[in-house]
Amino acid sequence: MKDSELMEKIVSLAKRRGFVFPGSEIYGGLAGTFDYGPMGVRLKENVERLWLQMFRDSRDDMYGVDAAILMNPKIWEASGHVSGFSDPLVECEKCKKRFRADHLDDKEKCPECGGSLGDARQFNMMFKTHAGAMEDDSATVYLRPETAGGIFANFKSVVDSMHPKLPFGIAQIGKAFRNEIAPRDFIFRLRELSQMEVEYFVQPSEWEQAFEEWRKMMHLFAEAVGIPQDKVHELEVPEGDRAHYSKRTIDFEFDYPFGRKELWGLAYRTDFDLSAHANASGAELSYLDEETKEKFIPHVIEPSLGVDRTVLAILASAYREDDMGGETRTYLALAPKVAPVKAMVSPLLKNKPELVEKARDVRAELQKVHPAIAWDDNGNIGKRYRRQDEIGTPFCVTIDFDTLGEHPELEGTVTLRHRDSGEQERLTVAEAADRIRSAIE
Amino acid sequence: MKDSELMEKIVSLAKRRGFVFPGSEIYGGLAGTFDYGPMGVRLKENVERLWLQMFRDSRDDMYGVDAAILMNPKIWEASGHVSGFSDPLVECEKCKKRFRADHLDDKEKCPECGGSLGDARQFNMMFKTHAGAMEDDSATVYLRPETAGGIFANFKSVVDSMHPKLPFGIAQIGKAFRNEIAPRDFIFRLRELSQMEVEYFVQPSEWEQAFEEWRKMMHLFAEAVGIPQDKVHELEVPEGDRAHYSKRTIDFEFDYPFGRKELWGLAYRTDFDLSAHANASGAELSYLDEETKEKFIPHVIEPSLGVDRTVLAILASAYREDDMGGETRTYLALAPKVAPVKAMVSPLLKNKPELVEKARDVRAELQKVHPAIAWDDNGNIGKRYRRQDEIGTPFCVTIDFDTLGEHPELEGTVTLRHRDSGEQERLTVAEAADRIRSAIE
Repeated sequence: MKDSELMEKIVSLAKRRGFVFPGSEIYGGLAGTFDYGPMGVRLKENVERLWLQMFRDSRDDMYGVDAAILMNPKIWEASGHVSGFSDPLVECEKCKKRFRADHLDDKEKCPECGGSLGDARQFNMMFKTHAGAMEDDSATVYLRPETAGGIFANFKSVVDSMHPKLPFGIAQIGKAFRNEIAPRDFIFRLRELSQMEVEYFVQPSEWEQAFEEWRKMMHLFAEAVGIPQDKVHELEVPEGDRAHYSKRTIDFEFDYPFGRKELWGLAYRTDFDLSAHANASGAELSYLDEETKEKFIPHVIEPSLGVDRTVLAILASAYREDDMGGETRTYLALAPKVAPVKAMVSPLLKNKPELVEKARDVRAELQKVHPAIAWDDNGNIGKRYRRQDEIGTPFCVTIDFDTLGEHPELEGTVTLRHRDSGEQERLTVAEAADRIRSAIE
Repeated sequence: MKDSELMEKIVSLAKRRGFVFPGSEIYGGLAGTFDYGPMGVRLKENVERLWLQMFRDSRDDMYGVDAAILMNPKIWEASGHVSGFSDPLVECEKCKKRFRADHLDDKEKCPECGGSLGDARQFNMMFKTHAGAMEDDSATVYLRPETAGGIFANFKSVVDSMHPKLPFGIAQIGKAFRNEIAPRDFIFRLRELSQMEVEYFVQPSEWEQAFEEWRKMMHLFAEAVGIPQDKVHELEVPEGDRAHYSKRTIDFEFDYPFGRKELWGLAYRTDFDLSAHANASGAELSYLDEETKEKFIPHVIEPSLGVDRTVLAILASAYREDDMGGETRTYLALAPKVAPVKAMVSPLLKNKPELVEKARDVRAELQKVHPAIAWDDNGNIGKRYRRQDEIGTPFCVTIDFDTLGEHPELEGTVTLRHRDSGEQERLTVAEAADRIRSAIE
């Protein structure tokens, strides 16, 4: 399969099976926005909850915040976003359309009308709005371009309320907005995106150790969500390409169907952010070591993960076609931990009340393991399996006449079908529950 | 305690103990925004997860979506927000400040400088921004003023991908933005808020039954999150005060310290929304009943809950002061289900390695029940209990020399302290785990 074809198939399946819909579709869409459907919401929530579990809740040194998207604009002056978060833009002198200068092959002629292009100008990518009743500059606020700002702005409040000891970190999941001139590649380059970010505060001398720990954690997370290690590549960003304050940056790149692109980032940002905010706000953002009585601005390690890019990497990694029973089958080989549905329960025939009743009991039993156990009694059993394959359900459980004791030695057993192989086993309900439990734990 | 005093105490505790911080505080704040701190994030997540469980995941007739905040502006024209989502505003002719006309006692004189006030004008409460490189009207987009629009816009995509049978509903949690002229009352009237909304689609003849079901569900939810029934009042909104399309609306009001105010809403919206979007977009938004072959636009029941108002109602309901050991004690009587920390484990003395080691084991054991089991070995045991009382931790577990077998008959037992009564029991670790489990299930 060609890469462009794979991408089309993923986008099509995502829409058809309720993962991701184009934003505002009935109104002709809105560039750079997508909506998660019923299956996509669950997949995304599973990714986010796993991240919270691994990056925040399983650690005593991590604290959560959930800061507002609208912040005092001075934050983005101090962070450098007001002056520097921009793309070079050229305008066609004939049709007045604007383009990213760095995306054009021909820097002279307009790709739409052939007109002459003007000089490149910097275009700030932050969305601007106005708070309050006045529409003047004094009321300008920005939609945050990254969640990190909301973490740094709350550093003092977290220290004052939680009294954490260094090293410690603050974690946040939330929306960020970037007015991309050319949003593209499905949910890869969006105008509205979700981020999962940690700012981990350390003694300056401890940065390398913390950097290595988070680097390992990011690989563990890739594994947990089902992104294979051989598709993830660490790019050591050379000094000339790093932000001036960063002493080390690794881009985690993924082999997307449209090329190897940045998935996540890990950066050692020194004390740049806290120092900049301390200077600009006048707030005391240093940390007092109670043992040594030393007072200093902590240094920062930042593991930054995009939710939507992660979801796309998961879908791209999981998409499969094979031959089953002489037909082409499409399935998503999702890690059971992130699959939107953990198992589907089905009576072999829907018009046999005794099968239906037993199947309902089995489903209730399996829902004690996990609530996301689907029900399907529609059409023949092969079609039901195919429908679950397409949304990545790892197991299908079928209740038939043997379950009811047609062959007495099989009474109480069910069929457990495995998504990837299509193979089936005969098991007790308790054994089936154990299989599901151990797959998602 | 006076109500204004209670409100001050809640705001102060929320900040001091890491529940809610003023937004952008180090930069002097941003009116109408607040940030959730480490304890607040957990409380809010617990509320949202409980809502997802009760309103979405435990039901086969419910589907989730997560739509973008930025939508095609035509949606808000069709919904009536562009023309009608506004507040009356007056401007002082002297100092040029603007005020909500309906919030002024004196309609003639400016409350700030005493100048004359002009006539009231309608001020649209939607935040406006521009998408793309052009800052003209063609690129104007709004921050959504409610999450409901993202549900209606996805009705067709959900029907086409999930093939649901009526009645069914779509649920969503997300941010909404309202450019309030006078944000106030802590996290009650915000410019940036979170909503939990359901649009439940029914046959026109079934609306009353569905309305009653959701009404009951909302009361169950109040109970589950620890909002006492006697503080929740149903206000049957009379016809003249309802939106023109609504045939019935109930406001669920709560006795906040600053008065009885709207907490949640439940409305029967007829087919107003889907019809408006079908007309404006040209999309087919009717439902085909496969049995009767009847095609019609479903009617809608909308249970709408504000996350931040719910959190505030929980905090206001839970705030308590009593006398304990001759001192005034402050505690939050939070429902264990929503409490940010389920239990705290503590060695009686931190300088006795055998106590610390045993306490670590006990904590690991209790974390099998729930990960949110805190550790505290700082200061005397009474102070540790008080710290947990203030954040609403239902249980404290203390490991002492009896745990280690100083009195052989008590070996392996721990002290379990109950937050509200301050009473203590001697239990085995397994019994303590059971107490915690049954309190949060």
